[in-house]
Amino acid sequence: LLYWAQQMERTSVPPIHNVAICGGTHGNELTGVYIVREMQKQKMEKAGSVSVTTVETNPRAVAAGRRYTEMDLNRCFTDVLLSSPITESTPYEVRRAQELNAQLGPKGSAEAVDLLIDLHNTTSNMGLCLILLVIDSLYYTKIIENNLSSVPVRAIQLDIPSSKAYSLESVGKHGFAIEVGPQPNGVLRADIFNVVKEALDLTLQWLQKFSSGHSFEGGTVEAYTFVKSVDYPRDSAGKATAVIHQNLQDNDFKLLRSGDPIFQTFSGDILKYEGEDLYPFFVNECAYYEKKIAFHLAQRKTYSFPPISVKND
Amino acid sequence: LLYWAQQMERTSVPPIHNVAICGGTHGNELTGVYIVREMQKQKMEKAGSVSVTTVETNPRAVAAGRRYTEMDLNRCFTDVLLSSPITESTPYEVRRAQELNAQLGPKGSAEAVDLLIDLHNTTSNMGLCLILLVIDSLYYTKIIENNLSSVPVRAIQLDIPSSKAYSLESVGKHGFAIEVGPQPNGVLRADIFNVVKEALDLTLQWLQKFSSGHSFEGGTVEAYTFVKSVDYPRDSAGKATAVIHQNLQDNDFKLLRSGDPIFQTFSGDILKYEGEDLYPFFVNECAYYEKKIAFHLAQRKTYSFPPISVKND
Repeated sequence: LLYWAQQMERTSVPPIHNVAICGGTHGNELTGVYIVREMQKQKMEKAGSVSVTTVETNPRAVAAGRRYTEMDLNRCFTDVLLSSPITESTPYEVRRAQELNAQLGPKGSAEAVDLLIDLHNTTSNMGLCLILLVIDSLYYTKIIENNLSSVPVRAIQLDIPSSKAYSLESVGKHGFAIEVGPQPNGVLRADIFNVVKEALDLTLQWLQKFSSGHSFEGGTVEAYTFVKSVDYPRDSAGKATAVIHQNLQDNDFKLLRSGDPIFQTFSGDILKYEGEDLYPFFVNECAYYEKKIAFHLAQRKTYSFPPISVKND
Repeated sequence: LLYWAQQMERTSVPPIHNVAICGGTHGNELTGVYIVREMQKQKMEKAGSVSVTTVETNPRAVAAGRRYTEMDLNRCFTDVLLSSPITESTPYEVRRAQELNAQLGPKGSAEAVDLLIDLHNTTSNMGLCLILLVIDSLYYTKIIENNLSSVPVRAIQLDIPSSKAYSLESVGKHGFAIEVGPQPNGVLRADIFNVVKEALDLTLQWLQKFSSGHSFEGGTVEAYTFVKSVDYPRDSAGKATAVIHQNLQDNDFKLLRSGDPIFQTFSGDILKYEGEDLYPFFVNECAYYEKKIAFHLAQRKTYSFPPISVKND
């Protein structure tokens, strides 16, 4: 597979002239909030020839120390919500999504920012993940993976059509979320702050080199492709009756096999996984309690990509 | 010192007839919420001859998934707030504190519950701590410490006079908080659920034995005594300019010496500790951001206690 990738023909791709770095889309995920504030304080507006915009995307939620005020902002960037008329009852986050779409998009247009990076945290033990809507952003995973040794780096691929993509990064021509954990909501950890800053620096360095004519070798990257979500077991009233089993807790991306324990009921019983071997992720993510998700399951696939170089305008 | 303790005269103490186990005093600290709900489901009302009351203490905050709705409930149990007249503008938590005081106290009276245990979580890496208002509850630390091997067990001593004690456990004749971490707010971990359940089982077993006439040997226990709090460095607008340094993060109860790094500024500078050697705890606790506390510092002292047996009514 690697051999095949290296043989693929060099591909010319449009240059990246501008990049938006966003934080605070979820107001209690503090790494992005403080990275963006520090970049603004340092008046960081250029990385070589690439212009950099920084945005605190949900300032009301940040001020409240909550994920969102009325509706999860990172579910508001579908074509339907971005074009819905604003009325008195429109949630704050839908209004804000439309503002952000005007500033950084419009989504799907030639005016949209070339690359949009949105910074997130999770309470799950996921290391540093790049969440990609389409598979063409795998280069970034490779760049960060090759140069960041302090935490595991992984790509998660959602493969949602652009019109239905609900997350902020879908507004850019290219985009991905950087999702790092474990970090409690409302807490800022130095190790995670440093690792995200390093990942951003690596990305910006790569973009500078690429824009100035450097080409990059082809290769392969492993990516986790979403298969399904698993809910907690519930009683007849709909209340969860169990907690993630401690063998699964903190073991995101460790292959889950039929018969492995996944839940412990509050009365002490153990519930086991039944099904095909898959990779769990977002295990015991705080924000997913209300979404009725105990963890996601993924397949791991190897993707190859060709050598690339910039196509001059 | 140990020898001296064993030589101390046996002390007769009043029996413990009833105990209250409370959870949800902070609505986003989930271990206590789910322990109390499970005990209520199991109709756990007796442990031998000891009657057991279970209370979800701040149900509105639990429903909202927040620490509190209007005011930190666990700061409402001072004599002043417990006796303040209720008006339209009285915060929910002050009303609720007065209800709890009527149910489990009144604080300082002969009718108060014999022992009140309040269950808490922290985002700090503190293992299992018993927070004691007065030093006479050290027995419980010893019982749990001797029998619980999966996490470190420590006593924290605040030594606040009863009238000014602001926390729920001060309502009982005896009382302590069990504080366990690290667990993110809004997340329930099986390992922490299990360890708290085990600590409660050990305490109830001890109370049963004690009530039925068993006496207990004297001994010594180490306790951490609060000395002072340290705030984040701030700019002229009052905003924090740094995060806990990664050498201090997760190192609660590891002796801090002059010259050790304690903060990393957002621009990358390292700030060092200056002062006497002390033990940090509640390092990077989420709820203390708004209280302007980066961590607490304590002295470690060894306390001895005499053999005890129950004094018959």
